[in-house]
Amino acid sequence: MTGIKQVSEKKLMLCSGRAYPDLAHEVARELRIEVTPIDLREFANGEIYVRFEESVRGSDAFVIQSHSAPINTWIMEQLIMVDALKRASARRITVVVPFLGYARQDKKHRGREPISARLMADLFAAAGADRLMAVDLHTAQIQGFFDGPVDHLHALPLLADYVTRHVDTRQLTVVAPDAGRVRVAEKWTDRLGCPLAIIHKRRDTERPNEVSVHEVVGEVAGRACVIIDDMIDTGGTVVRAAEALADRGATQVLAAATHGVFSGDAVERLEKANLARLVITNTLPTLTRFPSGRLVVLSIAPLLARAISEVFLEGSVTSLFEGES
Amino acid sequence: MTGIKQVSEKKLMLCSGRAYPDLAHEVARELRIEVTPIDLREFANGEIYVRFEESVRGSDAFVIQSHSAPINTWIMEQLIMVDALKRASARRITVVVPFLGYARQDKKHRGREPISARLMADLFAAAGADRLMAVDLHTAQIQGFFDGPVDHLHALPLLADYVTRHVDTRQLTVVAPDAGRVRVAEKWTDRLGCPLAIIHKRRDTERPNEVSVHEVVGEVAGRACVIIDDMIDTGGTVVRAAEALADRGATQVLAAATHGVFSGDAVERLEKANLARLVITNTLPTLTRFPSGRLVVLSIAPLLARAISEVFLEGSVTSLFEGES
Amino acid sequence: MTGIKQVSEKKLMLCSGRAYPDLAHEVARELRIEVTPIDLREFANGEIYVRFEESVRGSDAFVIQSHSAPINTWIMEQLIMVDALKRASARRITVVVPFLGYARQDKKHRGREPISARLMADLFAAAGADRLMAVDLHTAQIQGFFDGPVDHLHALPLLADYVTRHVDTRQLTVVAPDAGRVRVAEKWTDRLGCPLAIIHKRRDTERPNEVSVHEVVGEVAGRACVIIDDMIDTGGTVVRAAEALADRGATQVLAAATHGVFSGDAVERLEKANLARLVITNTLPTLTRFPSGRLVVLSIAPLLARAISEVFLEGSVTSLFEGES
Amino acid sequence: MTGIKQVSEKKLMLCSGRAYPDLAHEVARELRIEVTPIDLREFANGEIYVRFEESVRGSDAFVIQSHSAPINTWIMEQLIMVDALKRASARRITVVVPFLGYARQDKKHRGREPISARLMADLFAAAGADRLMAVDLHTAQIQGFFDGPVDHLHALPLLADYVTRHVDTRQLTVVAPDAGRVRVAEKWTDRLGCPLAIIHKRRDTERPNEVSVHEVVGEVAGRACVIIDDMIDTGGTVVRAAEALADRGATQVLAAATHGVFSGDAVERLEKANLARLVITNTLPTLTRFPSGRLVVLSIAPLLARAISEVFLEGSVTSLFEGES
Amino acid sequence: MTGIKQVSEKKLMLCSGRAYPDLAHEVARELRIEVTPIDLREFANGEIYVRFEESVRGSDAFVIQSHSAPINTWIMEQLIMVDALKRASARRITVVVPFLGYARQDKKHRGREPISARLMADLFAAAGADRLMAVDLHTAQIQGFFDGPVDHLHALPLLADYVTRHVDTRQLTVVAPDAGRVRVAEKWTDRLGCPLAIIHKRRDTERPNEVSVHEVVGEVAGRACVIIDDMIDTGGTVVRAAEALADRGATQVLAAATHGVFSGDAVERLEKANLARLVITNTLPTLTRFPSGRLVVLSIAPLLARAISEVFLEGSVTSLFEGES
Amino acid sequence: MTGIKQVSEKKLMLCSGRAYPDLAHEVARELRIEVTPIDLREFANGEIYVRFEESVRGSDAFVIQSHSAPINTWIMEQLIMVDALKRASARRITVVVPFLGYARQDKKHRGREPISARLMADLFAAAGADRLMAVDLHTAQIQGFFDGPVDHLHALPLLADYVTRHVDTRQLTVVAPDAGRVRVAEKWTDRLGCPLAIIHKRRDTERPNEVSVHEVVGEVAGRACVIIDDMIDTGGTVVRAAEALADRGATQVLAAATHGVFSGDAVERLEKANLARLVITNTLPTLTRFPSGRLVVLSIAPLLARAISEVFLEGSVTSLFEGES
Repeated sequence: MTGIKQVSEKKLMLCSGRAYPDLAHEVARELRIEVTPIDLREFANGEIYVRFEESVRGSDAFVIQSHSAPINTWIMEQLIMVDALKRASARRITVVVPFLGYARQDKKHRGREPISARLMADLFAAAGADRLMAVDLHTAQIQGFFDGPVDHLHALPLLADYVTRHVDTRQLTVVAPDAGRVRVAEKWTDRLGCPLAIIHKRRDTERPNEVSVHEVVGEVAGRACVIIDDMIDTGGTVVRAAEALADRGATQVLAAATHGVFSGDAVERLEKANLARLVITNTLPTLTRFPSGRLVVLSIAPLLARAISEVFLEGSVTSLFEGES
Repeated sequence: MTGIKQVSEKKLMLCSGRAYPDLAHEVARELRIEVTPIDLREFANGEIYVRFEESVRGSDAFVIQSHSAPINTWIMEQLIMVDALKRASARRITVVVPFLGYARQDKKHRGREPISARLMADLFAAAGADRLMAVDLHTAQIQGFFDGPVDHLHALPLLADYVTRHVDTRQLTVVAPDAGRVRVAEKWTDRLGCPLAIIHKRRDTERPNEVSVHEVVGEVAGRACVIIDDMIDTGGTVVRAAEALADRGATQVLAAATHGVFSGDAVERLEKANLARLVITNTLPTLTRFPSGRLVVLSIAPLLARAISEVFLEGSVTSLFEGES
Repeated sequence: MTGIKQVSEKKLMLCSGRAYPDLAHEVARELRIEVTPIDLREFANGEIYVRFEESVRGSDAFVIQSHSAPINTWIMEQLIMVDALKRASARRITVVVPFLGYARQDKKHRGREPISARLMADLFAAAGADRLMAVDLHTAQIQGFFDGPVDHLHALPLLADYVTRHVDTRQLTVVAPDAGRVRVAEKWTDRLGCPLAIIHKRRDTERPNEVSVHEVVGEVAGRACVIIDDMIDTGGTVVRAAEALADRGATQVLAAATHGVFSGDAVERLEKANLARLVITNTLPTLTRFPSGRLVVLSIAPLLARAISEVFLEGSVTSLFEGES
Repeated sequence: MTGIKQVSEKKLMLCSGRAYPDLAHEVARELRIEVTPIDLREFANGEIYVRFEESVRGSDAFVIQSHSAPINTWIMEQLIMVDALKRASARRITVVVPFLGYARQDKKHRGREPISARLMADLFAAAGADRLMAVDLHTAQIQGFFDGPVDHLHALPLLADYVTRHVDTRQLTVVAPDAGRVRVAEKWTDRLGCPLAIIHKRRDTERPNEVSVHEVVGEVAGRACVIIDDMIDTGGTVVRAAEALADRGATQVLAAATHGVFSGDAVERLEKANLARLVITNTLPTLTRFPSGRLVVLSIAPLLARAISEVFLEGSVTSLFEGES
Repeated sequence: MTGIKQVSEKKLMLCSGRAYPDLAHEVARELRIEVTPIDLREFANGEIYVRFEESVRGSDAFVIQSHSAPINTWIMEQLIMVDALKRASARRITVVVPFLGYARQDKKHRGREPISARLMADLFAAAGADRLMAVDLHTAQIQGFFDGPVDHLHALPLLADYVTRHVDTRQLTVVAPDAGRVRVAEKWTDRLGCPLAIIHKRRDTERPNEVSVHEVVGEVAGRACVIIDDMIDTGGTVVRAAEALADRGATQVLAAATHGVFSGDAVERLEKANLARLVITNTLPTLTRFPSGRLVVLSIAPLLARAISEVFLEGSVTSLFEGES
Repeated sequence: MTGIKQVSEKKLMLCSGRAYPDLAHEVARELRIEVTPIDLREFANGEIYVRFEESVRGSDAFVIQSHSAPINTWIMEQLIMVDALKRASARRITVVVPFLGYARQDKKHRGREPISARLMADLFAAAGADRLMAVDLHTAQIQGFFDGPVDHLHALPLLADYVTRHVDTRQLTVVAPDAGRVRVAEKWTDRLGCPLAIIHKRRDTERPNEVSVHEVVGEVAGRACVIIDDMIDTGGTVVRAAEALADRGATQVLAAATHGVFSGDAVERLEKANLARLVITNTLPTLTRFPSGRLVVLSIAPLLARAISEVFLEGSVTSLFEGES
């Protein structure tokens, strides 16, 4: 043979955008590595500049970015980071999105709409991403939007463990705040052995332009209720659900969700709501703290670090990725 | 200019596989055309042979096939038809699947599973399909699996109109037979102005290997109930739901679903069930008739014909495609 | 450097569909490994379900499936297995098809036909296959249908060695049963040093709708003849060739082919034919045994195992892949 | 023939993002059409929502968006509009970017940088764009980043005509403010028949960390000078060039550029500068007006309208697209 | 509707490379159009320059080039023409290759070879070709190398008609000069109703390094013979076949082939050979004339013109494309 | 785990086309390996045949070819080599083009032209190339034409070191011979600390068809001048620049360029020119030697070898790839 032979090595690199560097550093600490140094900034007109300050040739690169506000900027930054890694000869590029933006536009609700969640998957693929890692996608079908491996992680054990430590599950009812969340609620009832209720938005066919009624379907009187959701955005859904539950005689209402988006006046609205506790994870930076202390933020970093490590080591522990909803 | 100019024409052609030719002919009659003649057969070892017996050059071709049993054969036949159309210079190829096979495998329920619904979308694209038309996909997100226009049609108006003509909606409750159908059930309640109930499968955490309990969440005693679903496969889901509803005091139980798959001993099981009526559409051939006459099959052909016509004529009537679930 | 380094490992995994598990196990024994455990079954409506029961992350996966009856089901199953491997992060996926279905539709014989062999190559690529391994493709050009490495293995040495051990090659004539097989027949004459004859189907131009005459071109009187073919399907070609040879005074007629498809009443027809021996390999499961014992089945497993091993080890032994026809 | 035939029609639709609707309406007026009505807005968390309020089936759609601040938001909005058009069956989608963002990152200046201009071309292609139309790309090579037709329009005639109407060209020298603009400057000298000068940034090799000197190469003393550039961003380049020219005895200094980006305190800086006049076009919205009135903004709308019309009508007037630099 | 509507037109344009302009002009005359004017030349270092001198926007462009010597230059020129058409907005681009170069490398004869015929198909696709039109490809399987419509034309009727007008077919035997041509020879025997013979190259297994023997299989003594082939390259195959036939008592030997490549000293060798007549078509320019006048060149232009016209008009006459070998 | 595990190895192979084998061997010597043996030749009709004579399975293959005359042949040969490597299972294929052909056609200078440099990038990608390595591309933007990593090497240090060793840089002016080279000239002035001059081609607007005037912009009288360029093709640009500089009083004129194309009568013309020395590298074979000895050829092999080694070893030394112009 006329060439040279050499044993192959692989190296893990963790690269972070500017959306939420604290989470990246927390993940790095769990992995006992450092975040790869990058020159990341904006030109005067808002164009983003990226340059890796260390060689990434042949690396197994994980590019972490939470899609928080300003969401389009952070998505574009992550795309540009992927392009730079591809052109700098990274061997494999995994896009890590603790919260994936545009996930709610996962279908055409009406004609002539985009399917922005699929578009995001296509944009990351066009930039050069080989794999995607995400926590609690809005619907599990989004995995199928990316033409490659998707590691879909679940915060349910983290959230449910907190709830079981603080509430007597014999008194607890799990509540889906709308039709789209019933499947996830059922995973909670499976885990906790609790009954289910759902909040059902009914339009009055006789008064079509009126606001729909929020009915509670299921028994909640005299029980503690945990409203579960994938994300808290404006808070409206949870607040309305909490009100309906209180009206129907619930003794205590908690809420648990993976992603704390908290748009607009969500914090204010939630503070006023009748919620004993709101439990979320830090897939997104929570800049504003709740004065009341009723907001509990659990760290998603250990889960991300374990998943990254398993992907890098090609490990066989699959329990992390089980239980796709 | 040195060439020749000529006014462009477009021509619609409707091509049918062998799964359910009667439906294709019914659609053709609605369109006032004939189904394109094709030589379609199998070689001795089961390989499928296709040849169009008429020129398809430059045509706007619609290839209709219902994914009924033997499902893999009919999917492969449709793929081969698309390949033949592509190589014979059809200008645009729309795959029409009244019932899309493998739609339930639209996500990884557990690790190391395929996402077969995405695979199907990719296979049709690889064969040369430009567009997809389908009726009531198992989840609306499947639209996003295909990288091109998807016309997603809904049988709900057809089914709901039948129900409203036969049952007093003031006495009616719409029932989702499991968590995955609550969204569709809500569309029914929106249209009919009825209350909602759901069947909730609960696992007993103390006896993890035992069969789960089917609880009815919502009020059904003394009411007529219509169980809605996208498809009736083995019938188990509907039969169990009907039993649970009867146990809880429902006065009458109907079921309505778009697709009548009727696998295994579904017909027998459904005949024995406590169902006043089972309403479906003919997206799939229903070979076995129900002795009791309690099965009602509504024709989907007018809806398909209207949609095909609008796609061909690039019409602006979008109500057909509205209301994606 | 801020990341972690680690030596790369590769692991070979052999995955088998349900078409012919015995062959897969025989190959595994040759490789001194076990077939990867898979949950493979059908839902009531015929949809196939696949789940790998062991991690395949980072593996060099070989997915073996013989395209026997029901051929479309087994092809679809293999496609779904490839999709599952891709989504479960297999590093490289080689589709192993001892017999590739639809290989005979490798060109348009007439206008408006598909090229199904190319379609199959495209479908496997769309599902995620990186490489293809096959034995005696109907024409060697099919290698070019797949946009990636194809390992094209040949059973000729196996078959020819059997023939030379049982017939005096000085008395032997190699016979191509039709025009398409003359090239392969020439490889036999090169190896065995025998003369060549061919069966030529001639249409009578004066009676265009009549059955064509099968002429023997070349000397066969007083000689032993071995009819060679890539596959025995309905058996018609071989039976007619054997008759024509007997009519022209051949003393003994054998047949040798790589693939024993045996469709329809092939077995019965071949049993009645004037064949001293029919030699095939087990690229396909041969369910029906020949009462006469005149069928000889040689095992292709050692050849497949050697090829898989060389691909995994990136070995330089190329003699296996030489001599493409 | 078994189908239906019909004469094909094509329809032009002009769709505008929210970056600069006035320009879109001006182009529409020139085309004597109206801008297609769209529901375009942001959800509380910043995700963009798009819905076309009119059928776009079969249309020849032009999607106009200037990449002004907030630049990433407007690019993402245009991508989402393209996705929606693709899924709504537009026949051809042309992305019209009067100013293309990220065009300056058209190569790796140093290792491990992205080539963001190529990434933008790839993102538009991934979303579904068939064609690209742009005015004065930062370098003409960017045309080659898009794998399809690019209509590259030039504002030079517009700008140069203004200059020749206001300055005696016999007294005029064309000045390239840096090495990258010499080619464009040469087009001006070709058109106006004027001499050339360039501003050359020289680093002092003995004091490597010092600011480089801006030398004027060419004769400018006693002459009117027009500094040409493709864009005015922070204004620094033009201001420094104007100073250097004044220092070298230029009697009057003008500047002409296609794109007025005006980032940061550009307006203030330019107002203070020694510029008799600054001529730009309205490829970008110029929100802040210059108190002095020395800013002249010429309309690019007629040029865009003519180009769109020719693309739609497949006209042969090519002079618009000639003279690529 | 807010846009403008207009009837669509299509225009045919015939563009020719420099390999064989006479053929292009002959085809144009048949189509009653003119060849599109192009500026086509080489820079000093051999790089090819192409510019269309007329608008090709929206055209149905046919790019004709015969792959004659210097073959790589003409292929590259055609690729560059396709690229220019794509970037100039041609609507559809058909590559017309009367003779497709590299067609003989249609499989790997041995390991570690390219499949250059597939590569050519991929290169044309990469440049932007939508369709391929070719005459008598070396093997019909090459159609499957291109992922789109291929119009495969056959010169057999043209050649066979000439032969039947000049030779008494009752006295004629059709001869395949090697194993690869037996299928085409059988098409001749089908059309003419003649017997078949083949030339079989046999290697002597006892003297493995010796030249192989050319045996005639079939009856030729006392008969006129027509050797058929797809191309005459060095002429070796035909000359050796003619010798073998003469040795076996053939009374007269003709040869017929679609493509006259005539490499090296082919003309000289063929002139010396024992051939009554050599009939070819002008798919390639035949620069050297045969002094003897025994070379007959039939024009392929009418066939090409008819095919181009049918593709443009989307006609249904398929007889041209039937009978793929 | 059911499979086999093994440590991964990688092997570097250096494959050379026939354009300039001496350079390949020089690079191999630097790498202390041998060039991979290949059977490379032409068939009689000019088609190129390639076969690797050693296994390339799993290799990290570098395919070196200089795009010298006959340029289209050498490009095609390199494409065919890449195809053969892909089909023979090379793991990664890097195309090494010391001089990339067609690089000057990097944009449309006028309408209806190709962008041949992008086409070349696409052809290499279509053949199967994963990476590209080149020296001094005509414009740095060409990096963005290839959708993958490009290693862009620079000869500037090599050339500039030679110049500084032979000329007193205090007396030296760097001259850009046209507008397109000013950026590169500025890199020289940065490195050497010299002033800049440029040659400006001005068209006389009053006599539009006349030859343009070559003006020297900048001070050159009484100074030594080094004309820099990326390539010397016909030599016209350099010769005219040298004349203009002499006319303006330059005391000595040198020229330095990376690529010595020397087309047509370039050598003769350059010998006659007023050039003290012409310094180039051997990215292209320089067949003709200059009688005068004024041509200096520096070896690019050490730079190529270092870059190949770093790519193979995934090294972090990035200085080689820095300073993209």
